[in-house]
Amino acid sequence: MSDLTAALDLIGRGAEEIIKREELEARLRLGRPLRVKAGFDPTAPDLHLGHTVLLNKMRQFQDLGHQVIFLIGDFTGMIGDPTGKNATRKPLTREDVEANARTYADQVFKVLDRERTELRFNSEWFGTMNAADMIRLAAQHTVARMLERDDFAKRYAAQQSIAIHEFLYPLVQGYDSVALKADVELGGTDQKFNLLMGRGLQEHHGQPPQVVLTMPLLEGLDGVNKMSKSLGNYIGIDEPAIDIVTKTMKIGDELMWRWIELLSFDISTAETLTLRRDIDAGSLNPRDLKLRLARELAARFHGGAEAEKAVAGWNAVVRGEGDTALLPLAEIVVPGEGLRLTALLTAAGLTSSNSEASRKLKEGAVRIDGELVSDPQCVIPVGFEGVLQVGKRNFARVRLVATTA
Amino acid sequence: MSDLTAALDLIGRGAEEIIKREELEARLRLGRPLRVKAGFDPTAPDLHLGHTVLLNKMRQFQDLGHQVIFLIGDFTGMIGDPTGKNATRKPLTREDVEANARTYADQVFKVLDRERTELRFNSEWFGTMNAADMIRLAAQHTVARMLERDDFAKRYAAQQSIAIHEFLYPLVQGYDSVALKADVELGGTDQKFNLLMGRGLQEHHGQPPQVVLTMPLLEGLDGVNKMSKSLGNYIGIDEPAIDIVTKTMKIGDELMWRWIELLSFDISTAETLTLRRDIDAGSLNPRDLKLRLARELAARFHGGAEAEKAVAGWNAVVRGEGDTALLPLAEIVVPGEGLRLTALLTAAGLTSSNSEASRKLKEGAVRIDGELVSDPQCVIPVGFEGVLQVGKRNFARVRLVATTA
Repeated sequence: MSDLTAALDLIGRGAEEIIKREELEARLRLGRPLRVKAGFDPTAPDLHLGHTVLLNKMRQFQDLGHQVIFLIGDFTGMIGDPTGKNATRKPLTREDVEANARTYADQVFKVLDRERTELRFNSEWFGTMNAADMIRLAAQHTVARMLERDDFAKRYAAQQSIAIHEFLYPLVQGYDSVALKADVELGGTDQKFNLLMGRGLQEHHGQPPQVVLTMPLLEGLDGVNKMSKSLGNYIGIDEPAIDIVTKTMKIGDELMWRWIELLSFDISTAETLTLRRDIDAGSLNPRDLKLRLARELAARFHGGAEAEKAVAGWNAVVRGEGDTALLPLAEIVVPGEGLRLTALLTAAGLTSSNSEASRKLKEGAVRIDGELVSDPQCVIPVGFEGVLQVGKRNFARVRLVATTA
Repeated sequence: MSDLTAALDLIGRGAEEIIKREELEARLRLGRPLRVKAGFDPTAPDLHLGHTVLLNKMRQFQDLGHQVIFLIGDFTGMIGDPTGKNATRKPLTREDVEANARTYADQVFKVLDRERTELRFNSEWFGTMNAADMIRLAAQHTVARMLERDDFAKRYAAQQSIAIHEFLYPLVQGYDSVALKADVELGGTDQKFNLLMGRGLQEHHGQPPQVVLTMPLLEGLDGVNKMSKSLGNYIGIDEPAIDIVTKTMKIGDELMWRWIELLSFDISTAETLTLRRDIDAGSLNPRDLKLRLARELAARFHGGAEAEKAVAGWNAVVRGEGDTALLPLAEIVVPGEGLRLTALLTAAGLTSSNSEASRKLKEGAVRIDGELVSDPQCVIPVGFEGVLQVGKRNFARVRLVATTA
């Protein structure tokens, strides 16, 4: 396999779409480091594994010798919500932006190579633009084409209001590519329209249009919905190593392959094929592969030693001899003075319904701090802290707290 | 009639729409000079009577003691055509704008009172606006409401492209009213959407919304189409007095009433009623009233003495003893070495078709320099200069020139 083929393979891994593949190949043939741009929100970052899909792709470009531009879109962030309707979207100050950039740096350099990362802010060029420049930028696109963007089209059809400045923001993002002379721009599939904007504007400014590469949105722990804070199906990159391991070990086998493709550096595409064959043949237990992935993820954000400790802790718990103190502690908020055990097992994610919980209790499959419990009427009081167990491998460490209101 | 009623009457004369009439009344009751804004294109002005409809309304406000703001929209003019598609719409320079402003001044102060006119340029406030300010301005309006504007709606429906900056220009015009704290804005009926824009933006900026007054577009000499350079049915305000008189005397009686309403200061609304009665009763010849209007218009742009001379000249020509040298000279460009007389009579506007010209020739109604001509095959050579006459009152002084190409 030639270097070029290998590079194209690595860049294409997990990618949803590359526009256009032949342009990417031509750029790679140039033999110089490409300028690979990805834009980030200037609001306070708190990254989870879903966000790292993009960071990983950036890192792969770096490993191939390319220059990554981590662009913080602070220009529009400092405007806030100019309609004044969204009181919670306050304009960011220069200090906010800098503080958030530091938080980003703390997080993203766990994935990115600091030496090959250019941290930029688009206020650098938009801060000196005047009103006439903005009008000239707005002239580069038509209303009809802007209304083709999925979310605009839906809102317009549903007679939901679109403020005119919302048409300017994709142009701002597109112009960033002009200012940065980007060769490639990366983003989620939901960003495709905005990424393509850069191509048109670059051509208008006499630059070759950037290659656009979109990455899929990572499915969360449930294997169905995209990973997000609000759905609670996420692993934050600042979570303790034991949590990363425990949560990763709970994902389904199908999702494991997806996570390997999008999150692992260690398991190559070629090796993935071998591993699939081994599992199909029964010579490899999926659990062992999942543990390898869990260890890699824990090590990425906490280092090798912490990852080994977490894996050992998880193993011990599973063998029933474990240091359950290593398990993540979930606080469960209770409206009254306590919670029926069946409801608690479901709230802790160990059973999918209260009736399943009752059945497990009757089957003698439920333990609290290692002690068998079987009474479906049993109520656990506020203040309780301990380890719940259903079957041999499902554990949860919980604390019951009262609602403060 | 109270002063207020008289003022409302004068302001309402000829107006198409006042939004809102009760707000206008309330402003007039304030007893202070109102700030009355009208916006003008920064490109080279070459005004005709159609343009003066608006100037006359401004003058009426001045006569009532109000302050008029003659606003030149130079900010967008200095941007030119930002799509780059219209090569003929070059960006104006600061020098162009100033030269055009001087030309405007030479022309408009034939109507406006210099003492009560504030000449302003919107680059004054837009020149210091930055890109973020423009985004904030764009946030004040929605795409859907902008697409309600007649011409946008039609173009969008016809899938003709609308560049996004075209949505910003009405906002720019609207913001001018904020910057100027306008009480009233005047414009043509075709400007209504843009004039209303100012109301919304002023409210957003905590100002009472301006009263919007629209004036109809003046019908040209043909009495059908709006007066315009390209249709050739106009009287330019820099045309010689004799041309103003001759052309005015050719308009139809219906159009005369319309011109009196929109162009005359001398003939009040009350007098108009009396005059109509006199004409209906046969005690007044419409020709005499038309001559009074023609004299007023000639005097406005050339002074009383010139106007009297032109009227006398016109009278003399009509009585057949005239100084035809006073007639306007039309250059008629001929592709070959001459032009058939029938075609020439039509080109000079004396007949409406070549067949009508033939008929008039046969009837013995055509004269060249006072000599009867009746041969429909007659060809007039390039170089000819003289007076054509059809019937008793239709004259044209023409010169035949060859095409230079």
